[in-house]
Amino acid sequence: MTDTVVSSATKEVVIGFERPFCIIGERINPTGRKLLAAEMAAGDFSRVESDALAQVAAGAHMLDVNAGIPLADEPKILADTIKLVQSITDVPLSIDSSIVAALEAGLAVYQGKPLVNSVTGEEERLEAVLPLVAKYKAAVVAISNDETGISEDPDERFAVAKKIVERAADYGIPSSDIVVDPLVMPVGAINVAGRTAFKIIRRLREELKVNTTCGASNISFGLPNRHALNGSFLCMASGAGMTSAIMNPLHAEEMAAIMGADVMNGVDPNCTRWIRKFREPAPEGAEAQGGRERRRRRG
Amino acid sequence: MTDTVVSSATKEVVIGFERPFCIIGERINPTGRKLLAAEMAAGDFSRVESDALAQVAAGAHMLDVNAGIPLADEPKILADTIKLVQSITDVPLSIDSSIVAALEAGLAVYQGKPLVNSVTGEEERLEAVLPLVAKYKAAVVAISNDETGISEDPDERFAVAKKIVERAADYGIPSSDIVVDPLVMPVGAINVAGRTAFKIIRRLREELKVNTTCGASNISFGLPNRHALNGSFLCMASGAGMTSAIMNPLHAEEMAAIMGADVMNGVDPNCTRWIRKFREPAPEGAEAQGGRERRRRRG
Repeated sequence: MTDTVVSSATKEVVIGFERPFCIIGERINPTGRKLLAAEMAAGDFSRVESDALAQVAAGAHMLDVNAGIPLADEPKILADTIKLVQSITDVPLSIDSSIVAALEAGLAVYQGKPLVNSVTGEEERLEAVLPLVAKYKAAVVAISNDETGISEDPDERFAVAKKIVERAADYGIPSSDIVVDPLVMPVGAINVAGRTAFKIIRRLREELKVNTTCGASNISFGLPNRHALNGSFLCMASGAGMTSAIMNPLHAEEMAAIMGADVMNGVDPNCTRWIRKFREPAPEGAEAQGGRERRRRRG
Repeated sequence: MTDTVVSSATKEVVIGFERPFCIIGERINPTGRKLLAAEMAAGDFSRVESDALAQVAAGAHMLDVNAGIPLADEPKILADTIKLVQSITDVPLSIDSSIVAALEAGLAVYQGKPLVNSVTGEEERLEAVLPLVAKYKAAVVAISNDETGISEDPDERFAVAKKIVERAADYGIPSSDIVVDPLVMPVGAINVAGRTAFKIIRRLREELKVNTTCGASNISFGLPNRHALNGSFLCMASGAGMTSAIMNPLHAEEMAAIMGADVMNGVDPNCTRWIRKFREPAPEGAEAQGGRERRRRRG
């Protein structure tokens, strides 16, 4: 039983072994989104705002915020984006950057306890990021690669995760504040990518007793019908012990898969959330008595 | 690595740890289908015929055949149904009855090596069914309940399965010819039904090293959006080690979930089956060159 507690100024979210799967919305990220990148670089955050609200409305428990725009002032833009998102939603955020100065700028303005995304097993990253995580008493995503790259051997990826957890302990960061990303590879390129991921996830949970996350959609890269494939992956990863994912909550198929996994894992008591989400619409007559409004809020 | 080999006169199907999930079509079963029951009792097998063909076209690897009609001559009807189905399809069959005389009548006419569905841990059933399975060198579904009913304790259900495997060995039936049904209960009634099932399935695979099956749709009984919930269950059961299910192959959502699970388990080499099933349709022009026919056969 491991709980990773993150928070905003007013709301706590727990990523944990006996908790509903934690959905971290991935949309606020200019990588591969030219229009969003241009807008954010120009100080126009209207799309960030609508993306934030839409993801929370769709069921995201947390939001990942990334401001990685080439040649832009990433620390400033990341801090501004975080302030904006925190002003319009109350979900905790994942502060996402590969630039340490940007992580620090984000941490400095963040209200609550965020998730820092991310540290790797590379010495330079460990020494730069872990002190920040400790200073701000944040939680952190630990990506299981190091200077040698991403090993195809699940045992080596596990070993990297273990090293990060041990090194974090030297900085006073408890393993419950570490969410390991085992690195999910595209199954279209590496046929064993799914079973490798499940094997690492299971060991991370049973031996290292840490929470886990991943960029879920990577698994289906290059393949058709990605939503269905992501759904199968998410269910199986959840069954193997994965407790969160960075993903697009606007995709109904993946969201239903995860809600179904919660039911199967016994973390949707009395199937209440499943029933509320999917029960048959009330008959027409009931609509006139406010049924539509109730259902919309539930969405 | 356990392979359960079943066959028709001309085709072998393997249920196995490193094989694609085996889909056993459930439709030829008059239970709860009044019209089909009346037709079969009257010797009209037209619906059996169309159900058999439709299920195979939809991707069933085997077909379950049940003729349980109250007050009817079940042994004769079951034997006639099996003969008919074997005359129009080449997939191996599961001979499904709670009446021993019907199982025997089915076995007597069956061509190949069928799956007998089923034996339980009840003494009377063990003594009646196992000799038949041995005599006809069939494989058998072993349901993990006994005289005391269905235990809610996964360890007790595992113990019943173990007892059946041991008893079968006394009759010369190898454990590779036993496919255990751990009994999947409705998660709407028993909140831990999913995790209980996964726990038993995992032990059955890792400790008893047997193949497994279940009536998959039972998990979602009484809940809305059953297809999505069944899909989550099937993926997670497959991830836990389940190797087959008795289910309706006409439901696209469950079939996609299972095909996705096969991809994730690394048993769809190069994702060939996934890509063939879901790749974007060829442009209109290609249709005229026989594209439609090729796609139909692929079904």
